[in-house]
Amino acid sequence: MTTLTIGIIGAGRIGRLHVDNLRLIPQIRIKSISDVFVTDQLKAWAEEKQIEVVTTDYHDLLNDSEIQAIFICSPTTTHATIIKEAAEAGKHIFCEKPVSFSVEETEAALAVVEKAGVKLQVGFNRRFDANFRKVHNLVKEGAIGTPHVLKITSRDPQPPGVDYIKSSGGLFMDMTIHDFDMARYIMGSEVVEVSAHGAVLVDPAIGEAGDIDTAIITLKFENGALGVIDNSRQAVYGYDQRLEIFGDKGTAQADNVRETTVELSTVERVEKEKPLYFFLERYTQAYVEEVNEFISVCLKDSEVSCSGFDGLQAERIAKAAKQSLETGVPVQLKPLVKA
Amino acid sequence: MTTLTIGIIGAGRIGRLHVDNLRLIPQIRIKSISDVFVTDQLKAWAEEKQIEVVTTDYHDLLNDSEIQAIFICSPTTTHATIIKEAAEAGKHIFCEKPVSFSVEETEAALAVVEKAGVKLQVGFNRRFDANFRKVHNLVKEGAIGTPHVLKITSRDPQPPGVDYIKSSGGLFMDMTIHDFDMARYIMGSEVVEVSAHGAVLVDPAIGEAGDIDTAIITLKFENGALGVIDNSRQAVYGYDQRLEIFGDKGTAQADNVRETTVELSTVERVEKEKPLYFFLERYTQAYVEEVNEFISVCLKDSEVSCSGFDGLQAERIAKAAKQSLETGVPVQLKPLVKA
Amino acid sequence: MTTLTIGIIGAGRIGRLHVDNLRLIPQIRIKSISDVFVTDQLKAWAEEKQIEVVTTDYHDLLNDSEIQAIFICSPTTTHATIIKEAAEAGKHIFCEKPVSFSVEETEAALAVVEKAGVKLQVGFNRRFDANFRKVHNLVKEGAIGTPHVLKITSRDPQPPGVDYIKSSGGLFMDMTIHDFDMARYIMGSEVVEVSAHGAVLVDPAIGEAGDIDTAIITLKFENGALGVIDNSRQAVYGYDQRLEIFGDKGTAQADNVRETTVELSTVERVEKEKPLYFFLERYTQAYVEEVNEFISVCLKDSEVSCSGFDGLQAERIAKAAKQSLETGVPVQLKPLVKA
Amino acid sequence: MTTLTIGIIGAGRIGRLHVDNLRLIPQIRIKSISDVFVTDQLKAWAEEKQIEVVTTDYHDLLNDSEIQAIFICSPTTTHATIIKEAAEAGKHIFCEKPVSFSVEETEAALAVVEKAGVKLQVGFNRRFDANFRKVHNLVKEGAIGTPHVLKITSRDPQPPGVDYIKSSGGLFMDMTIHDFDMARYIMGSEVVEVSAHGAVLVDPAIGEAGDIDTAIITLKFENGALGVIDNSRQAVYGYDQRLEIFGDKGTAQADNVRETTVELSTVERVEKEKPLYFFLERYTQAYVEEVNEFISVCLKDSEVSCSGFDGLQAERIAKAAKQSLETGVPVQLKPLVKA
Repeated sequence: MTTLTIGIIGAGRIGRLHVDNLRLIPQIRIKSISDVFVTDQLKAWAEEKQIEVVTTDYHDLLNDSEIQAIFICSPTTTHATIIKEAAEAGKHIFCEKPVSFSVEETEAALAVVEKAGVKLQVGFNRRFDANFRKVHNLVKEGAIGTPHVLKITSRDPQPPGVDYIKSSGGLFMDMTIHDFDMARYIMGSEVVEVSAHGAVLVDPAIGEAGDIDTAIITLKFENGALGVIDNSRQAVYGYDQRLEIFGDKGTAQADNVRETTVELSTVERVEKEKPLYFFLERYTQAYVEEVNEFISVCLKDSEVSCSGFDGLQAERIAKAAKQSLETGVPVQLKPLVKA
Repeated sequence: MTTLTIGIIGAGRIGRLHVDNLRLIPQIRIKSISDVFVTDQLKAWAEEKQIEVVTTDYHDLLNDSEIQAIFICSPTTTHATIIKEAAEAGKHIFCEKPVSFSVEETEAALAVVEKAGVKLQVGFNRRFDANFRKVHNLVKEGAIGTPHVLKITSRDPQPPGVDYIKSSGGLFMDMTIHDFDMARYIMGSEVVEVSAHGAVLVDPAIGEAGDIDTAIITLKFENGALGVIDNSRQAVYGYDQRLEIFGDKGTAQADNVRETTVELSTVERVEKEKPLYFFLERYTQAYVEEVNEFISVCLKDSEVSCSGFDGLQAERIAKAAKQSLETGVPVQLKPLVKA
Repeated sequence: MTTLTIGIIGAGRIGRLHVDNLRLIPQIRIKSISDVFVTDQLKAWAEEKQIEVVTTDYHDLLNDSEIQAIFICSPTTTHATIIKEAAEAGKHIFCEKPVSFSVEETEAALAVVEKAGVKLQVGFNRRFDANFRKVHNLVKEGAIGTPHVLKITSRDPQPPGVDYIKSSGGLFMDMTIHDFDMARYIMGSEVVEVSAHGAVLVDPAIGEAGDIDTAIITLKFENGALGVIDNSRQAVYGYDQRLEIFGDKGTAQADNVRETTVELSTVERVEKEKPLYFFLERYTQAYVEEVNEFISVCLKDSEVSCSGFDGLQAERIAKAAKQSLETGVPVQLKPLVKA
Repeated sequence: MTTLTIGIIGAGRIGRLHVDNLRLIPQIRIKSISDVFVTDQLKAWAEEKQIEVVTTDYHDLLNDSEIQAIFICSPTTTHATIIKEAAEAGKHIFCEKPVSFSVEETEAALAVVEKAGVKLQVGFNRRFDANFRKVHNLVKEGAIGTPHVLKITSRDPQPPGVDYIKSSGGLFMDMTIHDFDMARYIMGSEVVEVSAHGAVLVDPAIGEAGDIDTAIITLKFENGALGVIDNSRQAVYGYDQRLEIFGDKGTAQADNVRETTVELSTVERVEKEKPLYFFLERYTQAYVEEVNEFISVCLKDSEVSCSGFDGLQAERIAKAAKQSLETGVPVQLKPLVKA
């Protein structure tokens, strides 16, 4: 296979971002896009991007024998169903995170994917960030020795609207899920226990919507190491994405990325740039790498590095975290052998 | 009062350090030092430091009417008794941390101090570090707004011997107690809940001695904020002492201190200095400031800023952390009104 | 004008880089490429890039009425002639630096461009680097007040071959010319005096070829400020591209860019990433911005920000530097009013 | 010799600073201090410092057979005479920089010192700064290979008064002299050529007083390396003291020192501490080390590491720099073999 014909399901911000990044890859033809709302604006945009078909029904894409791979960028509640249908239609699948809000649904979808033998990559874009990848590689190379403690700081610059919060699956499923995946990616070991603490400190409306906006989650890993994640829905200085892994031979830290290296010293202060504002700025290149890898996996029939199993595990941790928050005690996670 | 005559109880490393720092203060006369082991080496050292009396019995210091203030640098198990005796003898007291291994004993000692009306300062030297003090001041000035999350990383460069571990009171009482105090100092609010996780990852002998060497402790504060401390008995790259406090208007971070600012770039790498090796290097100046404040408090009859109450609170948190580690669930701390 | 048809003269490394960057711009059609050596490899590459015409004679491009703009990426000795022919053919021109090795030739070429009324942008790519642009903007906004001293460090990771050195025009014309342009860009004032010091410290073969490999050049600007550039042909730790501008209200510094923010601390050392290796890595995005601006200038008929005049001024400074090096005394530059 | 009796000539800021630092050394007795103005304040201060004799005539110190070493902290115009008299009186000498404003006078004074066989240390305090010492050691150990380029940035936070300027010997003799010494110290090679450029940009009154306030000085060293120093009398953000030495195996940089490591991120900016304000803050510890070394040299009869020869060489470079500034051309320095 030397070229790949693609269909996109969901023409929101992230769907359109993937289109732009896919268009940088020579072997790609984006034939179709579906969205429940097809506006004139969308049609014009699709034309500019040389996408031939715009439809309200994603089944048009699944039924199109030319389309070999689909990107699922529709709301989370639709993911599991579309995955199953797409797998049965023999399409390779790139699906945004999370796979679903229900571990059972995700497991069912993965079973269909497994049976169909198609590729499924889950959109944990942060794995493709050069900084975190470097730390991952240092750990693998043994640069920090045996890992003892993992620390992840993950703070958004501003909270989403309360409507979004209500349908988000909650902080752990919506936001921390990235950190749960990152924890597994960096540590190279599965999470076996989760203890979550949360608070509503950013906006009472988030609490009224039944969610929290601030959290500290402690993890125990199968390899005996400990981990801790701290989250906030609002860091006024910008997107705060840092991590550290500490082991018996040293520690590796990934700091925030800034627009420039410029430092200004005046009579008042020495100042440097703030962190890149949000995920579109910080993970610009990671999104490119992410789709590059998916396309390469499809074309070369190689193994997906960020798979449905990874999506499932992150969801299981998120679910355990929620349970820990509600019960006030640590929650154990049973080992799950990768199929 | 314009001069102060001092007695030192305990001529170990920290006792001798205080002597050197006290000798920088013009108003000070260090008259006597006691230690259960009086060697020729100690006598020679005392002479060099112009200390007139060397004795095996600390009661000689308490019975000396010239001595106005004592430094308790003897083993922790002796602290409470000496505090009580010294207070009853009308001496001002500087006591190394922790006050005791028992909250009840500490409370009893504080009651005697209270009644005697003498000064008692507890040796939480890190409060006098310029970096942490700066963060404390930024929080007080409102620079980060309302605090949401406090993070403290505290790692020693190497574990003490197993004999020390056995009589140390355990990681939380021996090492984390500094971080518990720091947490209260920076947050300006009391801890109301503690959840502790621990592991033996540095040295199995520490586990066999009944202790842990790696820990993550989550705190809830009275003001609603969350906190997390991570500890290790061994950071091979040196003493790791960092903290961050995040609030609704920003975040303030104190990084490690290094010997120099020099950076060397070669074909292999860009390298900079490691953190200062251990507490004697990192907190050199903090120890000076600490005794300066104590002497100033005694001379000016002003209020102790790091008091017996602070010592008691840190112990209560340490005790709760131990209980949480043993029971596997969070432990609540009842509010304790400062006398 | 809403689309632009382009021809590329010179299919070397930089010509091909521009092709890749131009292909990211939707309004662009790259119709033709010329090179004195047309290999099968070049033909295959051109096909992959959807370039229709591959020719050995750049006149084919100039004679093609469809082509509206050309990129001159051929050897420096050909630049002035091609600029004149292209201008007379009514093509807009992007020309790599330097315009020529002779101030007189450059002036003659600029005169033809002026008369023809076409756009000419000179390839000082570093102006489009986000870090230097930020410093430029800070100076313009008055953040450092009145500039007093400008410092530029510019070191290549490895020297070119001696054959290249021999035909390079010398260090000042080949390498420092970027820094001379940067000096004018950041300072916002013309250079009126140049004092150059040089040495052969990297490789005696460079000296035998009649050139130097290490230099310090002091500048005086029309606004009274001073400047200094230091160059080396070989910084073993990578491409070293830093600058600072100091004024009566402060100082602004642009540091090197590194691949990641990761820092690794071990028992041996604390290490961070080396600077990005060379210009292709460091200025990846600057090259994109550079062609974007040129295309935008052509399409919107707006003013070129990095013009032939800028190319001429940098050459005049380079020539003066060479003269200063040879004579051992400072060389004055007469003011040249921008046409 | 196990103790040393000291006399201080000149009770200004620097004389008093040395007193405080000398008092930290157990083997030292500061017996006498002289100053042309003996006020009640000075007497009280001397009493507090346990200095027995306060006199207006420094000859009282030279004639006191108990006094073994003197510190010359009086105005520069008096240095050479006092050095000669003190040497003839057999006293070891610590002299503030510069030794004199005249190379001939300095040479004459050094000859007397040489003949008398007493120690003479010149107060180039910056050599004792841990950062610069580290760079010096890295160079000596070969960490950067063969040195190619040395860069020193040295800027004061505010200019002295015009009266001071007038009697200062000019920027090069008063301020840059430290950098000339640092250049020799770091490079480990003598300066053979100096090219100076200067400007009056900070304050026209400095120009009216016949001096400059901004300078760039290029150096050539005996080992073939190049160097550049940039100076300003006023960096509004604080004392700016940085240097870098670049060689064929790498580069070593010493950055400014800041009060704390604290960094504050808010919605407006990320800010860190400014450099330590001025020499008293920045070189606090260097001044301590400096007198420690002098005392150690006297007590152990070891070799002075910052000698009269070093003082002379720095003056010769300063004089050459002035000549270069006045003539507009580089000035050669003849090699001077260390006696």
